[in-house]
Amino acid sequence: MREAPKDEVSANARLLERGGFVYKTMAGVYDYLPLGFRVLDKIRQIIREEMNVIEGQEVFLTALQPKDRWEKTGRWQELGKEIMYQFKDHSGREIGIASTHEEALAQIALHSIYSYKDLPLYIYQIQTKFRDELRAKSGLIRGREFLMKDLYSFHTDEKDLDRYYWVVDKAYKKIFKRCGLEVYVAEASGGAFTKEFTHEYQVLSEAGEDVIFYCAKCRYAQNREITVLKEGDKCPKCEGEIKTAKSIEVGNIFKLGTKYSQGMGLTYSDKEGNKKLVVMGSYGIGLGRLMAAVAEIHHDEKGIIWPETVTPFLVHLIEFKNLKKQAEKLYQKLLAKGIAVLYDDRDDKTAGEKFADADLIGIPLRTVISEKTLAKKGIEIKERHSTKSKIINPIEFIKRLVTRTHLKNPFPL
Amino acid sequence: MREAPKDEVSANARLLERGGFVYKTMAGVYDYLPLGFRVLDKIRQIIREEMNVIEGQEVFLTALQPKDRWEKTGRWQELGKEIMYQFKDHSGREIGIASTHEEALAQIALHSIYSYKDLPLYIYQIQTKFRDELRAKSGLIRGREFLMKDLYSFHTDEKDLDRYYWVVDKAYKKIFKRCGLEVYVAEASGGAFTKEFTHEYQVLSEAGEDVIFYCAKCRYAQNREITVLKEGDKCPKCEGEIKTAKSIEVGNIFKLGTKYSQGMGLTYSDKEGNKKLVVMGSYGIGLGRLMAAVAEIHHDEKGIIWPETVTPFLVHLIEFKNLKKQAEKLYQKLLAKGIAVLYDDRDDKTAGEKFADADLIGIPLRTVISEKTLAKKGIEIKERHSTKSKIINPIEFIKRLVTRTHLKNPFPL
Repeated sequence: MREAPKDEVSANARLLERGGFVYKTMAGVYDYLPLGFRVLDKIRQIIREEMNVIEGQEVFLTALQPKDRWEKTGRWQELGKEIMYQFKDHSGREIGIASTHEEALAQIALHSIYSYKDLPLYIYQIQTKFRDELRAKSGLIRGREFLMKDLYSFHTDEKDLDRYYWVVDKAYKKIFKRCGLEVYVAEASGGAFTKEFTHEYQVLSEAGEDVIFYCAKCRYAQNREITVLKEGDKCPKCEGEIKTAKSIEVGNIFKLGTKYSQGMGLTYSDKEGNKKLVVMGSYGIGLGRLMAAVAEIHHDEKGIIWPETVTPFLVHLIEFKNLKKQAEKLYQKLLAKGIAVLYDDRDDKTAGEKFADADLIGIPLRTVISEKTLAKKGIEIKERHSTKSKIINPIEFIKRLVTRTHLKNPFPL
Repeated sequence: MREAPKDEVSANARLLERGGFVYKTMAGVYDYLPLGFRVLDKIRQIIREEMNVIEGQEVFLTALQPKDRWEKTGRWQELGKEIMYQFKDHSGREIGIASTHEEALAQIALHSIYSYKDLPLYIYQIQTKFRDELRAKSGLIRGREFLMKDLYSFHTDEKDLDRYYWVVDKAYKKIFKRCGLEVYVAEASGGAFTKEFTHEYQVLSEAGEDVIFYCAKCRYAQNREITVLKEGDKCPKCEGEIKTAKSIEVGNIFKLGTKYSQGMGLTYSDKEGNKKLVVMGSYGIGLGRLMAAVAEIHHDEKGIIWPETVTPFLVHLIEFKNLKKQAEKLYQKLLAKGIAVLYDDRDDKTAGEKFADADLIGIPLRTVISEKTLAKKGIEIKERHSTKSKIINPIEFIKRLVTRTHLKNPFPL
């Protein structure tokens, strides 16, 4: 888009819409366009890899839900009041659309868990959630329809849940780091489920809807909702100084205990043959929100500055009218090496317009072939986060790119 | 499951549920469990590759839909009567859940297509569709919620649409062949959109809901709904014999013409600056239905026989109690080489039960280490489609597997 959308307040929505990453279908409901889909897919792959490392098994559950399983836990009424879309199908049957999947997973576990030998079990999915948020604002941060990674763990007892809880914590820290985000792990309320704290992964940002009190020295943090800390207090852990800031919650981990297994009748037989309730945990990451947080943290006044790990393309190649042949040749060479290139071959745009679009889209490496660079037998490279450019030999350029194998094109043609 | 589910008639649902590939949440609504998800993901990857080859750009659109865009084409009423779930959100706003995405794509195209230079444009997604089918039966073949690949093409004129239509046809044939399916491309009714035939990709199967008349010699086929052919007739193309059979429609391709661009006001400026309606095509493949068709075609009385291209794992390794160490060692070696192995290390099952489960699940290569094979310094290999087994050297076995790189584990740990 030539101009920023008028109805968006947050930087993430303004940049992501203007750059052609997403299209706003309704408030809180965004379509992912080709550029945005590529970022989403990179994030999905990072999450998958880290979930597989901690022995998660991937599934894909349905959005459509029958009423009965949600009545067993009392959530048909509870969630139906505000968050959960519920309606009658054409035959008059009551249907819900899942805003979360604890009941659905517990239902499947009823047919998978019989004995202590079947535990622990770790199941995750990357799937769309639907939540009728009254105030969907902040761009992609609070959506009515959004992709979520939700992991559920099943255990014999609290002790084993506690062990795995901190395994997930480590995996989450890796995921956010790989996506270019620095997180504070904030203690937060356990809500109705538990008296223990839960933990939220918070990224400091003015676009955030949360407020945390934190110590930059030892990284201890608490959500405002539960804390007794005040700005300027001494950190209770390290005597550093407590500060406060708005933040985006990009993930959370919960000990559910036996709340859902009780409602759903999910038990197992222990070694002595006694029936016991399965102990559960759940762990979420919103993919769109994560993408929005990256855009909030990594941008300047010109546009987004994607970290190399989640960028839609590694190279943004700009063609000039009189040097089409040379640009096309470089494009083909890069593709042949499996490097993801966005090729701007539009011939109705000026150089200035093309450079401005490259800054807006935010791909890490901008590449240009011009008369000036050809005179030096090279191509011009500019990193998005820098103001300096340099001229290098194209063969050398490609050689450097292919040795960074983690950046290879995940969409080979 | 020990026994086949009682409420399922079709072989695909019986085998996929019993083998633990899917879980039935409601009629026509199936969860994908870890085994089923892996098959789904293989199919998704095959489709993606072939869509990218024909220059498709991947997007991910929302299920939630505002009413207005569907009113422009008259489909809010038309689809709302039977197929489309429609309801009011908590604020009283009317919402629909997309049963298809022509309107949604045309809406986005309104902001992407201005001039003939922006055409042609090919956009696809692999996303969940919701359709309130009155009679959801036949297992995964006719679902109320299902993953679909839908491709939409945008053109300056009918001639260019016709060109791309046959490009998609070729890609579709490749996709089905790679998934182990032999299809007939059957002429079918164009419905309300066009007087030309559309084309359906039909797999002969008793579980199918369609009936086609076809010539096995030249592979000409027509859907019963439009044909004047009778069984025993001479083929109008090659003089072969016309036969008839039930079939599963695994994909279809449609010329939409200007139906949706007219409703949505989707135009472009041609070289002379005249405004013209964009010409559209749409092309669908149901992923769950495709998986069901593979199960229908590739099974025997014991279970599924997955083609190597879509199998959830390549090797099914069975451990015997007294030889745990040896099996574990082979498992680790296979994993280290990136080979997808399902490792049956259950110690409360008999050898007979493990063999029966291996046949049910249908992984191409069954591997066993026993006293007998150890005496010969080897492991036993049995292909699922064969009754014969043989003993081979494990190093030789691994060497043979790794040279078949297309079979490598897509879920590396």
